[in-house]
Amino acid sequence: MNAYRPQAADIGFILFDVLQAQDRLAQLPALADNADPDLLRQVLEEAGKFVGEVVAPLNRDGDEIGARFKDGAVTMPPGARAAYQAFWQAGWPALSGATEDGGQGLPTVLEMVLYEWLSGANLGWTMAPGLLHGAYECIKHHASPELKASYLEKLVTGEWLATMCLTEPHAGSDLGLARTKAVVQSDGSYQISGTKIFISGGEHDLSDNIVHLVLARLPDSPPGPKGLSLFLVPKFYPDGQRSAVVCERIEEKMGLHGSPTCVMRFDEARGWLVGELGKGLNAMFLMMNAARLHVALQGVGLLDAAWQKADGYARERRQMRAPVRQDPSQPADPIIEHPAVQRLLDTQRAWVDAGRVLAYRTAIELDVAKHHPDAAQRQQANLWCALVTPLLKASWTDQAFHGGSDCLQVFGGHGYVREWGIEQIVRDSRVAMIYEGTNEIQAQDLLFRKVLADQGAGLLATLGGLEQDLDRFDSAAAVRARTGLQ
Amino acid sequence: MNAYRPQAADIGFILFDVLQAQDRLAQLPALADNADPDLLRQVLEEAGKFVGEVVAPLNRDGDEIGARFKDGAVTMPPGARAAYQAFWQAGWPALSGATEDGGQGLPTVLEMVLYEWLSGANLGWTMAPGLLHGAYECIKHHASPELKASYLEKLVTGEWLATMCLTEPHAGSDLGLARTKAVVQSDGSYQISGTKIFISGGEHDLSDNIVHLVLARLPDSPPGPKGLSLFLVPKFYPDGQRSAVVCERIEEKMGLHGSPTCVMRFDEARGWLVGELGKGLNAMFLMMNAARLHVALQGVGLLDAAWQKADGYARERRQMRAPVRQDPSQPADPIIEHPAVQRLLDTQRAWVDAGRVLAYRTAIELDVAKHHPDAAQRQQANLWCALVTPLLKASWTDQAFHGGSDCLQVFGGHGYVREWGIEQIVRDSRVAMIYEGTNEIQAQDLLFRKVLADQGAGLLATLGGLEQDLDRFDSAAAVRARTGLQ
Repeated sequence: MNAYRPQAADIGFILFDVLQAQDRLAQLPALADNADPDLLRQVLEEAGKFVGEVVAPLNRDGDEIGARFKDGAVTMPPGARAAYQAFWQAGWPALSGATEDGGQGLPTVLEMVLYEWLSGANLGWTMAPGLLHGAYECIKHHASPELKASYLEKLVTGEWLATMCLTEPHAGSDLGLARTKAVVQSDGSYQISGTKIFISGGEHDLSDNIVHLVLARLPDSPPGPKGLSLFLVPKFYPDGQRSAVVCERIEEKMGLHGSPTCVMRFDEARGWLVGELGKGLNAMFLMMNAARLHVALQGVGLLDAAWQKADGYARERRQMRAPVRQDPSQPADPIIEHPAVQRLLDTQRAWVDAGRVLAYRTAIELDVAKHHPDAAQRQQANLWCALVTPLLKASWTDQAFHGGSDCLQVFGGHGYVREWGIEQIVRDSRVAMIYEGTNEIQAQDLLFRKVLADQGAGLLATLGGLEQDLDRFDSAAAVRARTGLQ
Repeated sequence: MNAYRPQAADIGFILFDVLQAQDRLAQLPALADNADPDLLRQVLEEAGKFVGEVVAPLNRDGDEIGARFKDGAVTMPPGARAAYQAFWQAGWPALSGATEDGGQGLPTVLEMVLYEWLSGANLGWTMAPGLLHGAYECIKHHASPELKASYLEKLVTGEWLATMCLTEPHAGSDLGLARTKAVVQSDGSYQISGTKIFISGGEHDLSDNIVHLVLARLPDSPPGPKGLSLFLVPKFYPDGQRSAVVCERIEEKMGLHGSPTCVMRFDEARGWLVGELGKGLNAMFLMMNAARLHVALQGVGLLDAAWQKADGYARERRQMRAPVRQDPSQPADPIIEHPAVQRLLDTQRAWVDAGRVLAYRTAIELDVAKHHPDAAQRQQANLWCALVTPLLKASWTDQAFHGGSDCLQVFGGHGYVREWGIEQIVRDSRVAMIYEGTNEIQAQDLLFRKVLADQGAGLLATLGGLEQDLDRFDSAAAVRARTGLQ
C-alpha cells in the first residue's frame, strides 16, 4: 500500500506562478500582510507534513475499524482523537479565521489546500473538522453577543467541533419539509424536539464538546422553507450540564467508515436562536459557497490520492510488452508504458491540476468578495464564486468517483481487494456526489439561480473575463480555448 | 429494502416477439424439439421463482456476513449451501448441458437468462456455479475418456463445482508469465506446484467436491503462453483422498463478499493433463465467448436490479414539486416525476433492454455456431459472437457500475447507507469490469483480433446484416439507425 503524500511544491506552482495569488491578495487590506509567498509556502510545507505524517496513516484503520457506536456514545477509530487534539492545538483549524476572533488571519485558499490534502489523506477523519468552518462563520455573522462569547473562540480554534443538523428522514434535498419543533421558553431560549439524520460527527470523542446548529420550526411558523429558523444546541452547556441531545445510532455506509453518520434525537433540548426567526436557511446558505468549495476540494484531494496510488503501481507492475520503450532484460514492461494506462493516468492528473487552478482561484475570489476595498471588485468576485462553485462541486466530486474507479482499473484484480487502498477511495468518494447539495441540485442551482436569473448576463461577463485572460497568450492551446469560448 | 424480482414475461417478449428465437432454434436439429415458446416460457417462470424465492433473499447476509475463512476451510454465508444443494438437485445447472452427458439439452440462451437473474439477485452466490459451465465444456471437449468418466456427469449436473486457476501474483492479464510447475510422473499423472490467486470458489462448503482446472508449465516448456498446459486437480480424488491443494486465505474485497476469492497453493498436487501439452490457453479460451457472455449478463442483471430498486424508491419518495403532475393533497411529489430522475431511470432501463436483445441474440448465435447444419450459417454465427461478445462484456459491465451508481444517486443519502441494498450493487458490480479479461483487454481483443485481423471484413459483413434487418422497418428510429450505420 503506497501512502498519500501532499506535494507542497505543486501547490506553490499553481498558487504563485499560475494564479499569482500574491498580487491579488496584496490588494486586500485584511490579508496584505499575510500574502507573502515565502510565508505561505512555509505554512504549506508544515501543513503537508502534518497531513502526511499524522492524518494519512490513520486512514486504513478508519475504514476497517471505523467509528463504533455503543449506548449513545461513539468511539472514533484508533488514533483519531490524538490526531485531532494535535491538529487543533497546532492551530490548523484557525488558519483562516479572523485574528479578532482568535484565528490566524491567513488567506482562505490556504484552508482550502489544507482540506484538499486532509481529504486525500483521510476523508473519514476530515469530516468532523471540515464542518467547523461553516459553523464558525455562521456564529460570527448571526449569533447574539452572548452566544458568541460562549462559542466563537472555541469554534475558531477548533477546541470544540460542530455539526449542521438539517436533514430529516422525509426532508433531504427538500429541507422545507423539515418538522423539528422549537418552542420558545420564558427566558428566551427554545426547546428543540425532533429527529435529524445523516449528521456527520453528531457524536464522537474527538473534542470535549460538540456544537449543533439545528434547523427547526416554531409551532406557528408557516410551512415550507420560510418557516425554518436556526438554533444552537451544544452537547454540553457552559455550566457542564449535558443537553437532551441523543445519538440514536450511526449508519452502516458504503464507505467513510471513519466518520460517524449519526441519527440525532432532540428531546426538548434547550437551545438558542441564531439569526432571525424564519431565516434559518439564509443563515446556513450564506456559507454555502465556502462549504461547496470544501467538498469540491475533497474531490480533488481524493482524485489526487487515487492518481498517486495508480501512478506508483503502474511504474512497478510489469505485464506484457509495451509498444515502445521495451526493456528486454525483463520478461514484461511496466504497465505505465502501455498507452491505455498512460492516457488514463494523464487524464486524472489533468483533472487534478485543472481542479486546483479553478478551486484555488475561487478561494481567492472568496477573500476578494469579503475584503476588497472596491465594491465593483467585490461584486465581480461574488459573481465568479456563485457561478463556478456549483460547477466545481458537481464536476470534481463526479470525477473523484469515476476517475478513482479508473485508477482502480490500473490495478486490475489487485484494485478490487483492500490491500492497496484504492477501492476505499472509490467507496469514500461516492458520498461527495450527494452531500452539500446533490450534484443534480448543483446543476439546478447553476442554471436557475446563476445563469437564468439574470438572463445569462453574469455568465457572459465571466466568460468575457476568461477571454481577456486568454488574450494574453498566443499558444495553440490558447487559440483553441478562445475559439471554444466564442 | 425492495427485493429483486425476475420478470419472466419481459424476457419472453424479447426472446419470442423481438428476436423470434423459436424460428432460429427450430433450424437446429439438436435443439428443435426444445424450441417451443410455451415450454421455454414455463422453464423461465420456474427459474424466476427459484431465483426470486431462494437465491435473492440470501444476498444481504452474503454481503454482511460473507464467506469466512478459518484453518484452510471456507464457510459460506448462511443459507448458501442449502440453496446450492436445492439448485443442482432441481437440475438448474444442467439446463443447457448436452443430453448425452446428463444435461437437459435446452438452448444456451435459457442458461444465460438464468445467470442474468441469479447475478441480479445475488452475484456473490452465483460466482461458484457460474464457473461450472466453462469447466464442463472444457472437460467435454478436451479431457481423456478416463477423466470424463470420473468428472463429466458430476460437472454437468453441478453436483460438484469447479474453478479456473489461471492468475498468479505476477501474472494477471499477461498469463504467459505464469510459473506454476507441472512435473510428469511415471503413471502419466503430473505433480502441480505453485500459487494461484483470485480463485473464485477455490474453497467452500457448497458442494462435496471441487474440480480445479489449473494452468501450469512443464520444466522444459518454452517461456510465454505457448509453454502453458491445462491440468485437472480435484479437491478429493475418486478414492476419497484429499489432494495437496490448500486454500491459504481469502481476499478482503470491495464487494462480492459472498464469494470467497482464494489464494490456492498446489503442493506437488497430483493432477492430469486436459487437452494437449502447450495448448492450455487454447483449451480455456475455447469457452471464452460463453464465459464473457456470462459476465456481460452479470452486468445486465445487476443493472436491472439497481433499476428495480431505484424505480421503486422514486415512486415512493416525495421531495419538492414536480413541474407537471403535481399532487396538491401532498406536501411534495414523488421524485420520479422530476425530469432528471425520470431520465436517469429510463436511461438505465434502455441499457437493460438493449443489453438483453444483444446478449440473447448472441446466446442464440452460440447455439447456431455449434448446431446449424449449414457451415456458412455456422461461420456467420461465429463471426457475430466473436465481434459482439467483447463489446457486450465491456459495455454492460461498465454500465452496471456507472448506471448502478446513477441509481444510487436516486436515493440521495439513503443510497449511501446499506439499508436499501443499492450501494452493494455498486460495490459488487465493480469487479466485472476486471475479471474474464479487463475491459481494456476486451477493447484490444475487439480491435486487433476481431476487426483488424481480417481488415474489417467481418465487421462490415456484420454491419451489413444489421442494415438488412433495419430495412424491414421504416420508423424514424430505423431511418436514424440506418443513417448511423452508413
